[in-house]
Amino acid sequence: MTSTPSTANSIASTVKVLAFDTFGTVVDWHGSIVREMQALHPAVDGDAFALAWRASYQPAMARVMRGEQGWARLDELHRGILDGILPRFGLGHLSEQERRHLNRAWHRLRPWNDSVEGLTRLKSRFTISTLSNGNIGLLTNMAKNAGLPWDCILSAEVFRAYKPSPQTYLGVAEVFDLAPGQVALVAAHHEDLSAARACGLRTVYVERPLEFGGHHVKDVSPQAGNDLHCKDLRSLASALGC
Amino acid sequence: MTSTPSTANSIASTVKVLAFDTFGTVVDWHGSIVREMQALHPAVDGDAFALAWRASYQPAMARVMRGEQGWARLDELHRGILDGILPRFGLGHLSEQERRHLNRAWHRLRPWNDSVEGLTRLKSRFTISTLSNGNIGLLTNMAKNAGLPWDCILSAEVFRAYKPSPQTYLGVAEVFDLAPGQVALVAAHHEDLSAARACGLRTVYVERPLEFGGHHVKDVSPQAGNDLHCKDLRSLASALGC
Repeated sequence: MTSTPSTANSIASTVKVLAFDTFGTVVDWHGSIVREMQALHPAVDGDAFALAWRASYQPAMARVMRGEQGWARLDELHRGILDGILPRFGLGHLSEQERRHLNRAWHRLRPWNDSVEGLTRLKSRFTISTLSNGNIGLLTNMAKNAGLPWDCILSAEVFRAYKPSPQTYLGVAEVFDLAPGQVALVAAHHEDLSAARACGLRTVYVERPLEFGGHHVKDVSPQAGNDLHCKDLRSLASALGC
Repeated sequence: MTSTPSTANSIASTVKVLAFDTFGTVVDWHGSIVREMQALHPAVDGDAFALAWRASYQPAMARVMRGEQGWARLDELHRGILDGILPRFGLGHLSEQERRHLNRAWHRLRPWNDSVEGLTRLKSRFTISTLSNGNIGLLTNMAKNAGLPWDCILSAEVFRAYKPSPQTYLGVAEVFDLAPGQVALVAAHHEDLSAARACGLRTVYVERPLEFGGHHVKDVSPQAGNDLHCKDLRSLASALGC
């Protein structure tokens, strides 16, 4: 925790809702996909497969937001990307049932070690919600599987818009009848936090140096603008007096 | 529990998601509003006040669904009804702040005695969600206040339609990528259940004879068509093997 206690006190006293990015921030998508691939298709390079699947995530959502197709849930976008990359990894022969099972790997992502304890402590003082581009069913299944104690599942699907659209950040404040400054976004991605800040939300950066795996360690140095910079969700809970 | 064990077994083996009506089914709106009025305005007849506030609930939602006004959250509809009835009860002088506080009484509704235990047991085997005309913020605050352990908050607000619109019942199945028959609606109101059944959902009736208070005991005799008829949520959990 590199932020000052006074900033933490200001958040603790004014913020009512903590909205969490999930992929990478609360759950370890890379490690979980690698683990699924090791179990299902051990001959495939799981690290490369996970990165390839994730690489088309932003472009797929951007196409939806540019209106190039109707609204599509993230499950559908994940499936389209999966179908596209399977042949490249020698898995073009997978059946419909195998593809459906593999696509649901995103519903089975595992939390970082600190997530369940951190969220449980934060829930005692704040309303804790997802604010994820994952669809509601994906996030609910993930929470049930991983033991994530959300008060509420908010998602791009609720607002019919993907982050970083302002509709998503402002939508959280509207749902809870709060001013934007009474909501904080917690995320491991500076561009997400920057878009939230432009809408008037408070922002908390969480270090997740291993988001892309041990071979691609992420720069997690602090950037100006965030209200808090935390190592993990346990340290965020401690900083906010939970 | 007046239904046969074989029906209960069929539900336990095919249904994945239990969607719950909330007002009257999970929480005691009448008793809670009476209690709030006794504390805030003891000179007012709390029973008559609660019934008057609730009486305009269906007509207000029907106006939204007929397109006579834009989308409005239930909090707004409750507030409009409240402003309308206050003078009749000698409370036309209440300030904006007092009205806001009173309107949030719906966020503070208390659960029936069996609700928390029943839901907690059901959650071990099923995904449990609200399917309520209450808005997301109202339902989240209610859950946090009452200790209701929902996996997911689904609401008219998510589907931009009030029950009994088919969009709400079918929306639950779509969110979870299930067939309608893999979802059951649990409710204390036959018209809600009947509309869900017309969409292909399974239906569970819960007896709440005191929904309108001790002076207006409700007929809770079984009606044809429902898959299960239960005394309360504890007996539903037992019937479903939870």
